[in-house]
Amino acid sequence: MRVEDLDTPVLTVDLDILEKNIRYMAEHCRELDIGLRPHIKTHKIPEIAHMQLAAGAVGICCQKLGEAEVMAAAGIKDILITYNIVGKQKLERLTRLAKRVNLTVTVDSSYVAAGISKQAQEDDCEVGVLVELDTGGARTGVQSPKEALKLAEEILKMPGLNLRGLMTYPSHRRAKPFIEETVNLFKKRGIPVEVISGGGTGLEEVSKEIGCTETRSGSYVFEGPKRISVPENPPNPETCALRLVTTVVSTPTPNRVIVDAGQKSLTLFVNFFRPRPPPPYYGYIVEYPEAKMYGMSVEHGHIDVSACKHRFKIGEKLSIIPVHQGMTLNLHDELVGVRKGKVEVIWEVAARGKIR
Amino acid sequence: MRVEDLDTPVLTVDLDILEKNIRYMAEHCRELDIGLRPHIKTHKIPEIAHMQLAAGAVGICCQKLGEAEVMAAAGIKDILITYNIVGKQKLERLTRLAKRVNLTVTVDSSYVAAGISKQAQEDDCEVGVLVELDTGGARTGVQSPKEALKLAEEILKMPGLNLRGLMTYPSHRRAKPFIEETVNLFKKRGIPVEVISGGGTGLEEVSKEIGCTETRSGSYVFEGPKRISVPENPPNPETCALRLVTTVVSTPTPNRVIVDAGQKSLTLFVNFFRPRPPPPYYGYIVEYPEAKMYGMSVEHGHIDVSACKHRFKIGEKLSIIPVHQGMTLNLHDELVGVRKGKVEVIWEVAARGKIR
Repeated sequence: MRVEDLDTPVLTVDLDILEKNIRYMAEHCRELDIGLRPHIKTHKIPEIAHMQLAAGAVGICCQKLGEAEVMAAAGIKDILITYNIVGKQKLERLTRLAKRVNLTVTVDSSYVAAGISKQAQEDDCEVGVLVELDTGGARTGVQSPKEALKLAEEILKMPGLNLRGLMTYPSHRRAKPFIEETVNLFKKRGIPVEVISGGGTGLEEVSKEIGCTETRSGSYVFEGPKRISVPENPPNPETCALRLVTTVVSTPTPNRVIVDAGQKSLTLFVNFFRPRPPPPYYGYIVEYPEAKMYGMSVEHGHIDVSACKHRFKIGEKLSIIPVHQGMTLNLHDELVGVRKGKVEVIWEVAARGKIR
Repeated sequence: MRVEDLDTPVLTVDLDILEKNIRYMAEHCRELDIGLRPHIKTHKIPEIAHMQLAAGAVGICCQKLGEAEVMAAAGIKDILITYNIVGKQKLERLTRLAKRVNLTVTVDSSYVAAGISKQAQEDDCEVGVLVELDTGGARTGVQSPKEALKLAEEILKMPGLNLRGLMTYPSHRRAKPFIEETVNLFKKRGIPVEVISGGGTGLEEVSKEIGCTETRSGSYVFEGPKRISVPENPPNPETCALRLVTTVVSTPTPNRVIVDAGQKSLTLFVNFFRPRPPPPYYGYIVEYPEAKMYGMSVEHGHIDVSACKHRFKIGEKLSIIPVHQGMTLNLHDELVGVRKGKVEVIWEVAARGKIR
């Protein structure tokens, strides 16, 4: 079966580019002498995680317990969950997982740590923990090296926890003094710091520079060495592996083309944290880069073709490179692996929708 | 089981409000003397569609063939698909469906109509069609009454098609002359117009005013009589039935609270069709409306609690009313029906992810 035989919209991945991206990042981190821990929330597919591990990754990172359960069931043995696990139902799942794999989880409060400790004691197991530092990311994490030390000292008193080190997100040069001061405070008290985990695709050098022992990168599998950002780093068909293949379903005016994929198949890029976000960017049209997607309704993509010489026809297929690839994967039940136009594998997006 | 026993994030619906919204819209359309055809893309749940039909709806509307297949399998007999069906794989599914239910589909080109006609002949069945008019919505649809007539005359020559009337979206007063002129042109040629279908929650009166025989409304089931729009019509806990129940997982600073739900559980409201969209709106926090969600990462919700007297604690639950409810449903595998705090039903979101 060839890609043109697939019904649309359908999400495909170019296997040559995917493999190249996996190799590139593994080599890059080897050269930097830093551990690579791929974040699987980007792809959510066990076989791709295994490809990353085979290329040399030290383990994987998951954002939710449900993702980690899927990966453990696929035989993956070293998992970091970068999330505060809260509540009895999740804690019981966490300790079950800790008995099957080498599990580490991040914490940023004694409340969260105490919950894990209590459950680990009940279930007679040990859970690895990293203290999360908010080094400027302004999400979760302790706010200062002193807070980190205080939390570490509390953790050391809690049975069932194995304090392994520190975590931050994203890796940034401003994090260096925060991390160094924390490590110094820990050393003075004789607290070992086996792991310092940084993160963010394209930030591997920064992770190394600020003292991390490992770096979590996710989107590189599909986006290449540098995260897509618009207008700074728009999608590049040479390094971007994903394609949403769509069909033109209407050409109502000479300048407007409507395809069969909208918000339910494709996410968009908006920098929501800016006070006034710039206009959104919806994706790059591989066959006609001069065609501009200017809007999406739930099931329709709206394309302005006024800059194109080509006359678009209903039934014609267009391939769109999505801009927020992890979120796009979350909309699809399947990802079709294609090599030189031929369908080679159809992967279930097994960890899709694992919100708990 | 009570709602507080559910693990989070979890999407719930208040059944009292849901039933009230369904009753309200049915009565409203009866009073207007216009047929109500609920758009099921909002909820994607067969049992809710049956509730809408039991309240008096004339049939349902689906946006994709895959949604219609789910609804047909649940015993629903009158289905309008407001989408140009293109391509052999979909056309074969369409005729299979046409043999089981009273099926109508919209078309805006002779290409699309001819594809359906050819397949209907092959499979020896008849498919109802409506000509879609672009009366200002600037998506799909023919551009003028003359184009509508030309397409209708072509359809009449195509075997296997039953031309039933016209469709437009959204209903708007500016559509009136377009529709009237089209109806007049059709009448002059003796082409009957059995159905004129308009659409948009809150636009039922407008549908009636511009001459529609039926109106397609979707979001009213969850949002109440008027579509949520920010800042004009923010979520109202009295009329909005959905709640995303979340748990506080971090209180890193006195003013910042982080909950366990982000872009993978909740969509946001941005008017993307404006050249410079206003800041996005992420949802209404029922317990503390003065708390403001100001951002979302994939799995975290970022809340500014500087205006709250309440001191938030890790483990505390917060209920958020989502703003784009149909898209939020598409992120969830289940919807939990709750009445007076008690879990009454857990629905599978059966038509979730049906992008084809």
